[in-house]
Amino acid sequence: MITGKNYIGNKLSAKGNSIYKTFNPQLNIENEQAFTEASSEEIDAAVTLASEAFKSFQNISGIKKSEFLNAIADEILALDNTLIKTYCLESGLPEGRAKGERGRTIGQLRMFADLVKEGSWVEATIDTAEPNREPQPKPDLRKMMVPLGPVAVFGASNFPLAYSTAGGDTASALASGCPVIVKSHPMHSGTGELVASAVIKAAQKTNMPNGVFSNLNGINIDVGAQLVKHSGVKAVGFTGSIKGGRALYDMAAKRDEPIPVFAEMGSVNPVVILPESLKEKGESLAKTYAGSITLGTGQFCTNPGLILGLKSDAFSSFIDRLSDEIIKIEPTCMLHPNIKGAYDTNKEKAMQQSAITVVADYEDEVQTNFARQTVTTVEGAIFLKNTTLHQEVFGPYSIVVLCEDAAQLEKIISNLEGQLTGTIIAESSEANKYPKIISALQNRVGRLIFNGVPTGVEVCTSMTHGGPYPASTDSRFTAVGIHSIKRWVRPMSYQDWPNDLLPEALKDENPLGVFRVVNNCDTKNSIHK
Amino acid sequence: MITGKNYIGNKLSAKGNSIYKTFNPQLNIENEQAFTEASSEEIDAAVTLASEAFKSFQNISGIKKSEFLNAIADEILALDNTLIKTYCLESGLPEGRAKGERGRTIGQLRMFADLVKEGSWVEATIDTAEPNREPQPKPDLRKMMVPLGPVAVFGASNFPLAYSTAGGDTASALASGCPVIVKSHPMHSGTGELVASAVIKAAQKTNMPNGVFSNLNGINIDVGAQLVKHSGVKAVGFTGSIKGGRALYDMAAKRDEPIPVFAEMGSVNPVVILPESLKEKGESLAKTYAGSITLGTGQFCTNPGLILGLKSDAFSSFIDRLSDEIIKIEPTCMLHPNIKGAYDTNKEKAMQQSAITVVADYEDEVQTNFARQTVTTVEGAIFLKNTTLHQEVFGPYSIVVLCEDAAQLEKIISNLEGQLTGTIIAESSEANKYPKIISALQNRVGRLIFNGVPTGVEVCTSMTHGGPYPASTDSRFTAVGIHSIKRWVRPMSYQDWPNDLLPEALKDENPLGVFRVVNNCDTKNSIHK
Repeated sequence: MITGKNYIGNKLSAKGNSIYKTFNPQLNIENEQAFTEASSEEIDAAVTLASEAFKSFQNISGIKKSEFLNAIADEILALDNTLIKTYCLESGLPEGRAKGERGRTIGQLRMFADLVKEGSWVEATIDTAEPNREPQPKPDLRKMMVPLGPVAVFGASNFPLAYSTAGGDTASALASGCPVIVKSHPMHSGTGELVASAVIKAAQKTNMPNGVFSNLNGINIDVGAQLVKHSGVKAVGFTGSIKGGRALYDMAAKRDEPIPVFAEMGSVNPVVILPESLKEKGESLAKTYAGSITLGTGQFCTNPGLILGLKSDAFSSFIDRLSDEIIKIEPTCMLHPNIKGAYDTNKEKAMQQSAITVVADYEDEVQTNFARQTVTTVEGAIFLKNTTLHQEVFGPYSIVVLCEDAAQLEKIISNLEGQLTGTIIAESSEANKYPKIISALQNRVGRLIFNGVPTGVEVCTSMTHGGPYPASTDSRFTAVGIHSIKRWVRPMSYQDWPNDLLPEALKDENPLGVFRVVNNCDTKNSIHK
Repeated sequence: MITGKNYIGNKLSAKGNSIYKTFNPQLNIENEQAFTEASSEEIDAAVTLASEAFKSFQNISGIKKSEFLNAIADEILALDNTLIKTYCLESGLPEGRAKGERGRTIGQLRMFADLVKEGSWVEATIDTAEPNREPQPKPDLRKMMVPLGPVAVFGASNFPLAYSTAGGDTASALASGCPVIVKSHPMHSGTGELVASAVIKAAQKTNMPNGVFSNLNGINIDVGAQLVKHSGVKAVGFTGSIKGGRALYDMAAKRDEPIPVFAEMGSVNPVVILPESLKEKGESLAKTYAGSITLGTGQFCTNPGLILGLKSDAFSSFIDRLSDEIIKIEPTCMLHPNIKGAYDTNKEKAMQQSAITVVADYEDEVQTNFARQTVTTVEGAIFLKNTTLHQEVFGPYSIVVLCEDAAQLEKIISNLEGQLTGTIIAESSEANKYPKIISALQNRVGRLIFNGVPTGVEVCTSMTHGGPYPASTDSRFTAVGIHSIKRWVRPMSYQDWPNDLLPEALKDENPLGVFRVVNNCDTKNSIHK
C-alpha cells in the first residue's frame, strides 16, 4: 500500500534520484520501504497544480469544503491498522498514543468541517452606503476573509498525525480555501504517504480540483527550500525546531514577494512554583511533574523544561521528591537515533555548564534509542548569566532554578525568550501577592496555566498554541483551534459591488445565514435597501 | 511653539548633532525652524521608557484609554490654526485639505476611543471546564487579545496628519495598549512636533505613564534603523515607498527576535474598463478619472496609475476624452522638491520605454514644484513584457493599456504585483460575463471597486487598506478601520486561571459587559458555575 512515491496532485510520481528510508527506533533498524525524494520538476509541478486548483478551490462553498474535510477523516479511519502499525514502526511510539493522535487528527478535521459548513468564520462585515452624506457620499463597503493561495506545510517529527500530513496546519489551510503542499517528514514518510493517500481519495470522491493537495518526500533541506522559495507558494506552516523554522522564515522573508511563515518552534515552558503551594501539595506535585517531564519521552513542545522556585527547605524537599519520583519511571523510546543523539548532546552540554548540580539521572542500562530522564538544579544568579541554560533540551530533561527572592525570579522570567506556555503553581490566596511575576510571565508566553502541567494542548477555540518568538515566528496567531485558520486568510473589501456578483456571505439576502457585522451590529438579518 | 526637539517620553530633548529643516514647496524655500535628529542615546531612552510604560499601559482599562485617545483629539483641535498653517507650509497642500485631514485624524482617534471603551474588540472567548470528561478532564480555557509591546510608527509623507504622528497606526497601537515611538517624517517635522505635543499633553492630563509616546526627529535612515533593530521594539507600522518599507521589513526580519512590520507601500491601482460601459458613460468617466488621477497632485496611495481596456473605437475615444479633460486641469504643487524630482525621473523613464505613446502632457509653464499631469498608452503585448511599465509613478501620471482581448486582459492582471485596489468599470449586466477577469483582479488586490474611483479611503469597519505584496508587507491586515488594531495584538490564553486574577474581559461575571464567545456561542451573559 505504501509506494515510496510522491503525490503530485492526484498522481503518484517518483522521478527523483535520491532515496531514503524511515527508521524503527524500538528495533534500531531501518524500515524496509524506500522513499524517493521529490525532484525539482515534481516540486514545480505540485505548485503549478496547486495554483491552478486555487482558482476554483478558493470559491468552493463551505458545504463542499466540509464534505472534503469529513471525507479525509473517513479515509484516514479506513486506513485502520495499516496506519497505526506504520505509525508505530516509524516513531517508536506505542499503539495507544497512535490511536489517541488519530482521534485528535480526525477531531480537528471534523471541527474545521463544521466551521466552514456554518460559514461565519469569514468575518463578514457590511457598511451600507449613505449616498446623501456630506461633504462626500459614503460608498457601500463589504469585507470578508479570503484565502491567500497555496500553503506549504512542514509536519512535526513528534506528532506524525495531529501536526503532520493532515494535521492542524493542513486542515485549517484546506478549510480556508488554500490548496496544500505537504513536505513529508522524513522520519515518518510511510505514515505520511498513507495519510496523503486518504486526502487524495477524499479529494477525488468529493470532486475537488486536482492539485488541491500534494505530498512531497524529502530528507534534505532542498525540497523544502525550493517549495518555500517558489513564487506560487503564498504561506508556510511549520512545526519543529528553532533552527528549521528560522531557516524557512529567513528564506520566505528574502523572497521578492515575502510570504508569511507560521513556525511553531522550541519552548522550555517555565513552571513557577510559589512557596505556599509546596506546603499543601508538594508531594502530589512532584509525582505530577515527574509524569509531565517524561510524557512521550519528553518529546512534547509543551514539555516543562524549566522549573523556577524560591530557595527554601520546602522547595528543596520538593526537588528531592521530584528526583525520587522521576527515577522510578521506566525510560521509553525516542523518535529516532538523531533525536536521541541530540538529546544526549544537548543534555550533556547543559550539565557541563559550571555550577550545575545533577539531582536525578536514570542510570540503569536502557535500549539503544531510549532516553534517560534527568533533573538538574542551579542557582538563580548563575542561570541569569548563562543563556545556554535557557535553551530547550528536547527530551525528558528539566532544570530547576533556585531563586534568591521574588525580584530575582521576576528578572529571570523577564529575561527568558518567548514561550508557548508558562505555569504558576500556587495557593489561590497566594498568587495575587506576586503581580509582577505573573505579569512578567504573561509577557513571555502564549498560554498561562494555573496549578496544572503544560503538557496537553486542548483543541478548542480558547486555546493559544504559539507565543512570542521563538515559541513561534508570529505571536499574533495560534496553531491550534479554529482561529488557526486566520493564518491563511486576508481581508478583502468590495466597494459598491453589485449584489449578484458578491460572494454569498456578503449578499444582501444573507443566503448562507451567517453572522455578520452590519453597520457595526452583529446580526444574521438580510439587508433591506 | 515648535522647538525642533524630540519628545523622549514627556521631555523635550535635543542632544544630537545633526540638524535639518523642512521645506515650503509652494515658495520653493526652506522653512525657518531647524530640527535636531534624535541621538543614539535618545532613541534608546525612548524605547526604554516605552518598555517601562508598557508594564502598566498594557493593563490600563478601556475607559482610561478612551479618555487618552479623546484627549489627543481635543488637544489636536486646540492647536487650531498653528497646526493648519504649519501643515500647509510644510506640505504645499491647501488649507481645505489640511482641515479635512485633521477631521479624519480626529475621527480615527475618537473611533478607537469608542472601540476600547466598549471593549469587545479583545475577542474574548471562553471554553468552560469539563472535569468529568473521559479519557481526560477538559480544563477551563479563556482567551483574549493582548498588546505586543512598544510599536515604532513611520508616518507617510503624503498624509502629514491622518497617516502620521497621531494617525491610524498610532491611534490603533495606543488603543491596543502598545506604547508608540514615532519616527517623525522629515518633510513635516513641524506638523509632527505640534501633534506630538498634543499627544504628550493628553497623556499627562489623563495620567498615562511617561514613555507611552515619544517623537523622534530623523532625516537619515539611521534613526529609523536603530529603532527597528532595538530589542525593546515589538512591531513596526509604516506608510510610504516600497524601497523604504522593504528596507524596514528586511531589518526586522533579520533581528534575533524578528518582529512584525506592517508597511503600506506602492500601488498602481488598476482600473479595468469593460466595453459596454463606454457607450453609456464614456464621457462622464473621462471627467471623473481626470479628476482622480490629479487629486492631491496624484499623491494618493490609491491613485489610478493604470487603466486597462479592450481595444475598440469606443475605448480610443475614451482616451481622447480623458486627454482633453486632464489637460484642462490646473497643475498643483507636490509635497517636496525630492518628490517632484522623483516624479519627473520616473515619468521620464516610463515614457522612454519603447512603443509608448504620450496622449496627454500638460505643457504650459508651471511653478517649480508643480507637477505636470501626463497620460500615455501602450499595447497589451508590450505592457506584458515590460515590467518597468508596471511600476508606480508617484504623481499625476497614468498609463492606459490597449488589450487585444479578454484573455490578454486577464493575463495582464494576473501578472501584476499586489495592489491596494482594483476597479471594474462596467454595466451591471456586463460584469458577470468576465468572471475570470474579476477573479484575477480579486487575487491581486485588497479592495475591489465597482464603477467608482480608487482615490478616497472610507474609514469604516469594512474597509481593507492593504493588499498582497508590495501593496503591503502582510496582506492579512488592514491599515484603516477598527480592525487595523489587530496588527498590534496577540492571543493570550489562561488555563484554569483563578477568576479574581483573570483580566476583566474574561472574568465569570463579565464586569465589562462585552460580547464573548462562551462555549462557541456569542453572548454577553456571565458564566455560572
